[in-house]
Amino acid sequence: MITDKLIEKIKYTGNPSVVGLDTSAEYLPDYEKVKGNSSDMAKAVTEFNYAIIEKIKDVAPAVKVQIAYYEAMGINGMKAFADTCKAAREAGMIVIADAKRNDIGATAKQYANAFFGGGDFDCDFLTVNGYLGTDGIAPFLTADKGIFALVKTSNPSGGELQDMKLENGLTVYEQMAMLVEKWGADNIGASGYSRVGAVVGATYPEQAKRLRKLMPHTFFLIPGYGAQGGGADGAVAGFDEKNGGGIVNSSRGILCAYRQEKYKGMNFAEAAYAATVDMREDLTAALARR
Amino acid sequence: MITDKLIEKIKYTGNPSVVGLDTSAEYLPDYEKVKGNSSDMAKAVTEFNYAIIEKIKDVAPAVKVQIAYYEAMGINGMKAFADTCKAAREAGMIVIADAKRNDIGATAKQYANAFFGGGDFDCDFLTVNGYLGTDGIAPFLTADKGIFALVKTSNPSGGELQDMKLENGLTVYEQMAMLVEKWGADNIGASGYSRVGAVVGATYPEQAKRLRKLMPHTFFLIPGYGAQGGGADGAVAGFDEKNGGGIVNSSRGILCAYRQEKYKGMNFAEAAYAATVDMREDLTAALARR
Repeated sequence: MITDKLIEKIKYTGNPSVVGLDTSAEYLPDYEKVKGNSSDMAKAVTEFNYAIIEKIKDVAPAVKVQIAYYEAMGINGMKAFADTCKAAREAGMIVIADAKRNDIGATAKQYANAFFGGGDFDCDFLTVNGYLGTDGIAPFLTADKGIFALVKTSNPSGGELQDMKLENGLTVYEQMAMLVEKWGADNIGASGYSRVGAVVGATYPEQAKRLRKLMPHTFFLIPGYGAQGGGADGAVAGFDEKNGGGIVNSSRGILCAYRQEKYKGMNFAEAAYAATVDMREDLTAALARR
Repeated sequence: MITDKLIEKIKYTGNPSVVGLDTSAEYLPDYEKVKGNSSDMAKAVTEFNYAIIEKIKDVAPAVKVQIAYYEAMGINGMKAFADTCKAAREAGMIVIADAKRNDIGATAKQYANAFFGGGDFDCDFLTVNGYLGTDGIAPFLTADKGIFALVKTSNPSGGELQDMKLENGLTVYEQMAMLVEKWGADNIGASGYSRVGAVVGATYPEQAKRLRKLMPHTFFLIPGYGAQGGGADGAVAGFDEKNGGGIVNSSRGILCAYRQEKYKGMNFAEAAYAATVDMREDLTAALARR
């Protein structure tokens, strides 16, 4: 079962973190050379990702590939997305496509074909948006693949709708949490977690603690650590009593580590490796402090 | 201003409808010949779309291209999506990319680059999901392009979250409607409608009437007519007092018209043309009955 597999990889690497390959060409040391040409940019992004995957594959369990950065480069970018996902899977990593897809049932089925059907964009997990309810989610649950549905997002204005109070006493995001927990109920693995995970931002630790109680079988994908301002303690706030149940994402903090004073003298891949190890230690320390 | 331009095209064609190019290879007369090969399927879908666009370009103002059907064919499919959008724009039609994109600000900016930045996937309008609030929407409002944000979707389980009652007396979808109306407030054209439209399903006419009152400056994209069970009267329920303010989508009803007894003897493009004209008459009659 895919969530069990992810949890095993986290145990093996001792690292509950996922490296976000939100690779903007602007992050590359060679950006000036490729700037403006989508084919050159996409090739450079692919090579950059390959080098990072090769370095981190034994110290991180998973990559999260943010498709927007690739779509922005058009067809060439989509090829870079496909090649990146393929390389990460071949390196033995779990691949999360961060695409936040959502549509009515017949169309959701097409998205499931795109990401779970063995084609160019094949991955292990897909992020989704549950605003359309059960019939937009069901098509993603037919294979041994997993989804992460948005519950409480990490951005400042996420609360405009998500934090609204319902008549039943729950907030909108808590209501979404109840739906997500229900969607996973028939797909719980040996780990106790289901194939239907939740996106719960590192920037809202109090809410994450409450969500952990509301969603005991739901694995958390936690964005917002690092560049978005969430610290390690906030990032692990939604973990369970055994210090499991979640995976924390960092993107720019790892991809652009080579620009930091701390990693001076390293090339981008070495710096990414060092930053991934540092993130592991940061999260491990935060978990030990709980 | 793009919404004014869409409204002018609707007046010119006398047709408040949009042809949904949700072109599954299975819809093609030649499906058996291309089945199983994504390159052949994508090419056949592109040719099919070209033929339909060429036939309908003067009787329909716009096409809505549902990206999921193209993503499902991988890189080749994305090329078919790009080629289809380009052909429709060159034919003078308004192009709505139906992709329901959504993410935090920095990532939403990448999606805006993808669909509004002049690249392979360039279009006039993009559908989006507003669950992340204002900072996930703002990046789409920097160019003279438009968005349609999901408010009340046409599918059976859309109400699971959307129909929940808030403490303030509104439903979740009505609250979303208030946000959408606000997002458009600084971008209202000569027509009185803004660049921030709403997706309002044809299957929920009573809710559409109420939404028209709540969102006086918001143009509606109305799915669910035809194959999803919404009739013409339901589809125009959210139109304004001057019989404007909305555009109704039909996909399978037009793409697969050649399979209907009614259009027997016509090839697929002729049948699509006839079905588009029939839809125009059906909607015009429904508007006259109000």
